[in-house]
Amino acid sequence: MPCEPDHILAEIDRLVSEEVLAIVETSERNETFPSALVSKICSLGLPGLVLGQTKTPDPTTLFCVAIERLAVHWLALAEAVHLQTLATSGLAQHGDDKLKNEFLPDMLNGKLIGSNCLSEPSAGSDLSQIETTATSRGDAYVLNGVKSWVGHAGVSGLLNVYAKTGGAGLGGLTCFLVDAGSPGVQIQSREKKMGVRALPTAKIVFEQVEVPRSRILGRINRGMIVAQSFFVQGRLGIAACAVGLAQAALNRATSYAKARVQFGSKIIEFQGISFLLADMSTEIEAARQLLCRACRERDARGQKTEVLAAQAKLFATDTAMKVTTHAVQVLGAYGYTSDEPVERWMREAKLLQIIEGTNQIQRVTIASRL
Amino acid sequence: MPCEPDHILAEIDRLVSEEVLAIVETSERNETFPSALVSKICSLGLPGLVLGQTKTPDPTTLFCVAIERLAVHWLALAEAVHLQTLATSGLAQHGDDKLKNEFLPDMLNGKLIGSNCLSEPSAGSDLSQIETTATSRGDAYVLNGVKSWVGHAGVSGLLNVYAKTGGAGLGGLTCFLVDAGSPGVQIQSREKKMGVRALPTAKIVFEQVEVPRSRILGRINRGMIVAQSFFVQGRLGIAACAVGLAQAALNRATSYAKARVQFGSKIIEFQGISFLLADMSTEIEAARQLLCRACRERDARGQKTEVLAAQAKLFATDTAMKVTTHAVQVLGAYGYTSDEPVERWMREAKLLQIIEGTNQIQRVTIASRL
Amino acid sequence: MPCEPDHILAEIDRLVSEEVLAIVETSERNETFPSALVSKICSLGLPGLVLGQTKTPDPTTLFCVAIERLAVHWLALAEAVHLQTLATSGLAQHGDDKLKNEFLPDMLNGKLIGSNCLSEPSAGSDLSQIETTATSRGDAYVLNGVKSWVGHAGVSGLLNVYAKTGGAGLGGLTCFLVDAGSPGVQIQSREKKMGVRALPTAKIVFEQVEVPRSRILGRINRGMIVAQSFFVQGRLGIAACAVGLAQAALNRATSYAKARVQFGSKIIEFQGISFLLADMSTEIEAARQLLCRACRERDARGQKTEVLAAQAKLFATDTAMKVTTHAVQVLGAYGYTSDEPVERWMREAKLLQIIEGTNQIQRVTIASRL
Amino acid sequence: MPCEPDHILAEIDRLVSEEVLAIVETSERNETFPSALVSKICSLGLPGLVLGQTKTPDPTTLFCVAIERLAVHWLALAEAVHLQTLATSGLAQHGDDKLKNEFLPDMLNGKLIGSNCLSEPSAGSDLSQIETTATSRGDAYVLNGVKSWVGHAGVSGLLNVYAKTGGAGLGGLTCFLVDAGSPGVQIQSREKKMGVRALPTAKIVFEQVEVPRSRILGRINRGMIVAQSFFVQGRLGIAACAVGLAQAALNRATSYAKARVQFGSKIIEFQGISFLLADMSTEIEAARQLLCRACRERDARGQKTEVLAAQAKLFATDTAMKVTTHAVQVLGAYGYTSDEPVERWMREAKLLQIIEGTNQIQRVTIASRL
Repeated sequence: MPCEPDHILAEIDRLVSEEVLAIVETSERNETFPSALVSKICSLGLPGLVLGQTKTPDPTTLFCVAIERLAVHWLALAEAVHLQTLATSGLAQHGDDKLKNEFLPDMLNGKLIGSNCLSEPSAGSDLSQIETTATSRGDAYVLNGVKSWVGHAGVSGLLNVYAKTGGAGLGGLTCFLVDAGSPGVQIQSREKKMGVRALPTAKIVFEQVEVPRSRILGRINRGMIVAQSFFVQGRLGIAACAVGLAQAALNRATSYAKARVQFGSKIIEFQGISFLLADMSTEIEAARQLLCRACRERDARGQKTEVLAAQAKLFATDTAMKVTTHAVQVLGAYGYTSDEPVERWMREAKLLQIIEGTNQIQRVTIASRL
Repeated sequence: MPCEPDHILAEIDRLVSEEVLAIVETSERNETFPSALVSKICSLGLPGLVLGQTKTPDPTTLFCVAIERLAVHWLALAEAVHLQTLATSGLAQHGDDKLKNEFLPDMLNGKLIGSNCLSEPSAGSDLSQIETTATSRGDAYVLNGVKSWVGHAGVSGLLNVYAKTGGAGLGGLTCFLVDAGSPGVQIQSREKKMGVRALPTAKIVFEQVEVPRSRILGRINRGMIVAQSFFVQGRLGIAACAVGLAQAALNRATSYAKARVQFGSKIIEFQGISFLLADMSTEIEAARQLLCRACRERDARGQKTEVLAAQAKLFATDTAMKVTTHAVQVLGAYGYTSDEPVERWMREAKLLQIIEGTNQIQRVTIASRL
Repeated sequence: MPCEPDHILAEIDRLVSEEVLAIVETSERNETFPSALVSKICSLGLPGLVLGQTKTPDPTTLFCVAIERLAVHWLALAEAVHLQTLATSGLAQHGDDKLKNEFLPDMLNGKLIGSNCLSEPSAGSDLSQIETTATSRGDAYVLNGVKSWVGHAGVSGLLNVYAKTGGAGLGGLTCFLVDAGSPGVQIQSREKKMGVRALPTAKIVFEQVEVPRSRILGRINRGMIVAQSFFVQGRLGIAACAVGLAQAALNRATSYAKARVQFGSKIIEFQGISFLLADMSTEIEAARQLLCRACRERDARGQKTEVLAAQAKLFATDTAMKVTTHAVQVLGAYGYTSDEPVERWMREAKLLQIIEGTNQIQRVTIASRL
Repeated sequence: MPCEPDHILAEIDRLVSEEVLAIVETSERNETFPSALVSKICSLGLPGLVLGQTKTPDPTTLFCVAIERLAVHWLALAEAVHLQTLATSGLAQHGDDKLKNEFLPDMLNGKLIGSNCLSEPSAGSDLSQIETTATSRGDAYVLNGVKSWVGHAGVSGLLNVYAKTGGAGLGGLTCFLVDAGSPGVQIQSREKKMGVRALPTAKIVFEQVEVPRSRILGRINRGMIVAQSFFVQGRLGIAACAVGLAQAALNRATSYAKARVQFGSKIIEFQGISFLLADMSTEIEAARQLLCRACRERDARGQKTEVLAAQAKLFATDTAMKVTTHAVQVLGAYGYTSDEPVERWMREAKLLQIIEGTNQIQRVTIASRL
C-alpha cells in the first residue's frame, strides 16, 4: 500500500485540481456524496496510516496534513475520509481475523463505506444514556433502537452499532458490525443540515435486526473500549478539517481584499481590514501548530494525547468559526451569497464545533486533567 | 392613522400569533415575500411613525420596539417593514406635493412596495463610485447603469434610483423615483443569500430608462441629502432587528437547556451552559438599552444621533451574530438542522453585520466623532 | 438635606475641580484616605438618596450618575462614597429609632465612616461558611472571629459585623453594629492591593468583643435580610464606578491618539487605533445604558432588579477591564508608567470584577432567573 | 562554551531553585537588578546560542525554551537575559574584530551589561523620527539627543546608540557603541513602570558625547541593518517570556482552584472556573506551539521568519494578558493583593504587549506579507 508522504500529498493535489474542484459546488447543491473520490483518496492509504496498516514515521501528522489539504478545497470530502477512518477503526483494532479478512481491505480503500452508530436522541454527549438494546437469541443478537446523527447514513454498507447488552451505563455496551442491508435496518430521511450537505447524516432505526455473535467487535460489554479507540483520532481529524476550512476562508478574504477597491484604495490597505486578516492568519497558524503538536505527540507516544487532541479540536474549530464569519464580513454583500463559497464555509464551520465531542465536552476533558 | 403605542404593539402580537407564525418556515423555504403581512403591519402606521406622519411623543422608540417584536418571530418580515420605511423616506421628506399625493399613502401603508437603489457592484461602502448615469433629454432624464443588492427587487413598484447627473463624487448624484415597470428596467434573478430568503434581493439593470424630470426627489445633484435622510433610521431599524433576532435565539437556547437532560441533569444546571446563557442575556440587554438610548435621543433631539445609531447598529448586530452562533451550540446537533430555527437565525444574523453600513463603516463613523 | 439633581452634580463638579484633582495622585501614592472629601460628598445627600432619606423621583439614577462622575476623576473616592452608603444601609433600613438617632445623621453625611464586615478567609462568595461567632452573655453578645477584606478598615468608626448566632448556614447569622474602638477589635495591617490604594482594606480580628444586645440590626438570626438589603445597591454602585473609570480611560486614550504623531500622522488616523477606540466607546455606552436601565427599574419598581443589577455589574466591570487595558496599549510605553494615570486605572479596574459579588457570582444570579 | 541543551536547562532549574526563588519578591519590591544571576545565566551560553557563537542544531528553540522556563519563575530575569542578548547582537554580527575582542566575551557572559538605545520621545514605533544626531569631528563623532525607554539603563556599561549621520529617515542612521561612563552621558531617573520593576528602564540624555569613529557598528548610515538584525530575535524572546508568564499564572490559578472550597466543593469543580482554566491552558499551548514553530523555522532557514515571529509575539503576549487577568479573577480578592504573585504577573503581562514592537506593529508586519 502506498505510504510515502510526498506521494500521498502530490496525489491529493492532483485529484483536487483534476477531479475535486469541478464538482464541489454542484455536489453541495445537489447533496451528492462523492463516493468515487472518497474511495480514490482512501486508496492512497489514508485510513491505513492511522490504523497501523503502514509503517511510516509520522502517520498521524501525515494523515492530518492530508485532511487539512483536502479541507481547504472541500470540507465534506475531507470529513468523509475522516469518518471512514473512524468507522474502520473498531474493525482494524478490535476485529478478529475473520472479520478483518472479510471487510478490512474494502474499508481501508473506501470501496465499502462505513458508519459509526453511537449517538441517540437522548444520548449525545452522555453515551451512558444509550437505549438501543441487543438481546441474545441463540447464536445471534437482536438489535432494537434508534441511532441519530449517523454520518454516511444511506451510503454506508457497514455499521458499527453500539447497543446495551449488560447493565446500565457505559460498562454494558457492545459494538456490533451490522450490514446496512440487514432486514430491519431503516435509514430515515437525511437530516437537513445547515452545511456539509454532500455528506449525508440521518437517523437509523433498528427493528428486530438480527446480528450473528461473530459480528461483535472486541468483547461483550466492552464496546466503550472500541469507541474510545477512535475518540482521539476523531478530535484530530476534525481539527485538521477546521484548519483547512479556516485557511480557505483566509485565502479568499485576502485575495478579495487585495482586489476590491473602495475610497480609492484596495481595502487591504485599510487597517480595519488588514488587522482583521492579520489576526485571522495568526490564529490559524496557532491552531495548525497546536494540532501538529498533538499529532507529533501521538506519533511519538501513542494514546496519551487526549488533552492535546481536545485542545486542538477546541481551538481549531473555534478559530474556524471566527475566521469564516470574518471572511464573509470582508467580502460584504458578495460574501453573503452563494456566488462566493465563504457563506458555505461559515455554515460548515459550525458543524465542527459540535461533532466528535462538542467544544463543551472538550473543555470537560481538558479541565479534568489539569 | 392609528398611532397609539398600545394599539400598535397589541395588533402586532395578534398578527404574529394569528398569521405570522404559521407561515414563517414555509415562506423562508419557498422564498415567498409576505406582501399581505407587510401591508397589514405598515397599515398600523409604522413607516409613518418615523417619517413625521403621526404625532406621538416617542415615534422612533415605538417603531424600534415594534420592529424588535416582529424580528423575534420573523426577521424577514421585520426587515421588510424597515426597508419599506427607508424606501418611503425620500418621498416623505423630499418629495413635492404632487409626488406625495400620488404615491405616499400607498407607500406608507405598504400597498405599494418600494426599493432604494443605491449600491452598485463597485460602489458599496463608497457611494462616490456610483457609475449609473442620468442624462438630461428634453423634459426627462435617461438612466443607464446597474444597481446591486436591491432589497424588495421584483416585488417593489417604485424605485429610488441614485444616478450621476453632475460631476464625480457624492456631490453629483440625483435621486429619481422610477416606476419599476418602466421600459428598460430589468430585474435580474434574485441573489442566493445565505439567509433572509423570503425577502428578495437582486441586481437591477437600467438601460435607457426614461424618467420625467418631475420624478426627482429633492434637488438635482443633491441626491446625497435624500440618502442621508434615512441613514440614521437605517441603522436603528437594523439594530432593532438584531436585538429581536438575538432574543429569539436566547429564548430557544434557554428553553432547550431547561428540557435537555445529559449526565443526569438538565444541561442548564451545568455552568458551562448557564454562564454562556447569562452572558448572552447580558449582552442582549446591553444592546437593547443602547438602542433605546439612541431612539430616545432621536425622539428628543432629532438628527444628532449618528454616533449613537452607529454604536447601536454595531453592538446589536455583533451581539446577534455571537448569540445565534452560541444558540446553535447549546442545541448541539439538533441546532444544526432545519428542524430547529436557530440555524436559520445564525444565517440571518450575518446579514445584519453587513447591511445599512457594514460594521467597519459604523466604526469609521463612530471614530470620526471621538 | 439637599436633593436637587442639578445641585448635587454641580457641587460634585465644583469639588472635583477645586479639591479632588489636586490630590488624587499624591493620595494614591501615599495611600491616604480622603476623609474630608468623602464627608463633603456624602453631605450633598448621596447615601440618603438610595436609603430613602430624600424625596426625589429618580434617586438610584441620580446616585449612580454622581458616582460615575466621581469615578471619572478618582475611583477610590467614588468607591468610598459607595461603600459608606452600603455601610449605612443596614442601619437606615433595619436599625431601631435609638440606633438611628445616635448614628444615622453622621453616617449619612460621612462624618462617621462605616464598614461592612462580611467576608472571611473561608467565606467569600459563599457566606454560609462564616465562622465568626456571637455568643450570648447576659445582655450582650461576645464576638470572636476574623473578618477579611473589610473596606474602610482603620478609618471607620462603626462596623456591621455578621456573626453566627444560630445554626449552620445563612439562616443563623446576625448583624451587629460594633464600635471600631471596642476592646478586642484588632485592625490588621492593610492589604497591599494592586490598586485603589487610597481606600484601605484589611482583616479585622474580633477577640472576645462584647456588643450590647441593643446593637443588633434587624432580628436575631436574620442577618442575611440586612445584608441582602444592599446587594443590589452594591452591584449598581460598582457598575457606576466601572463606567466612570472606563470613560476616563477612553478620554485619555482619545486625547493621546489625537496628539501623538507617528509615520507622519496622528495615530488616531490609523484604523488600527481608531477602530479600537470606536469599540471602546461603544461598549462603554452600552454599559452605561444597561446601568441606567437597572437604575430606572429600581426607581420605578423597587427591589425587583437583581438580574438587571447583576447584568450591569458584570458587563460594566468587564468593559472597564477591557477598556483600561486597551487604553494603556494606545499610550504604549507612556501608558505603562505612572507618569500617566492609565496604568493605575487598569490596576483599579481589576478590583471591580471581583468585589460586590465576583463576576462569576453575577452569572450565577443571572442564570438562575433565566 | 557549554551548549548541551540538557546541561543548560538543568542548570537553569538548579539556579531557579537555589538562587532565584528566594529573591524574586524582594528584588521586585526593592527594584533591585539581579546582576549576578543575569551573568550566571548568560554564562551558560544563552546569548551565544542565537548569536552564532555555538554549534547546536536548534539554537533558537533552545534559547526560547530556556527563556520560557526562566519567565515561569521571574519575568524580569528572563527579560534581562533576553535584552542582554539583543544588546550583544549588533556587536556579534556587525562589530569588527577589535571591538569583538574587547567586548564580546564579557557581553556574552553577562559580566558587561548592554543596552540598546533606539526609541526616543517622538520615535517609538516610527524610528524614522529619530532626532539624536552624531556629528563628525576629526576622528570622532559627537552625539546629542535623548533616548527613551532604555532597558538596563543605569546598570549597563555599553550602549548601542542609534543616531542620525545622514539625511532624514531610516537610511541616515548609524549605530555607535558608547561607553555608559563617557562624559555627557546622563542617565535619568528610572521610569516608574507598572511592572517588571527589578529591570530598570530610563531615559538617557546624550550631550556632546564624543565617540571614536572606531566605535561604529556596521557601516555609516547603515544602522538600520544593525537594528534589524535583532528584530526577529526580539519578538521571539518576548513571546517566550509571555508563554512562561502565562504558564505561571495558569499553574497558580489551577492549584488555588483545587484547594479553595466554596459552596461545599473545590471551586475547580464548577465549570464556571474549570472551563476558564481549560481555555487558558488551550491558548497557552497554542501560543507555545506557534512560538516553537517560529523557532524551528528560524533554526532551519535563518532570517525568513519575520511573519511567524510577529504572529508568535502577538498571540503569546495577548494570551499572557488574558490569562494573567483571568488568574487574578480565579483567586478573587486573594489574587488582588501582593500576598499572591498573580497581581504582579498581570501588571507584567501588559509590558509584553508593548515592547519589541507593539502588537499593532506586529499586525502591520503580518498584514504586509499576506
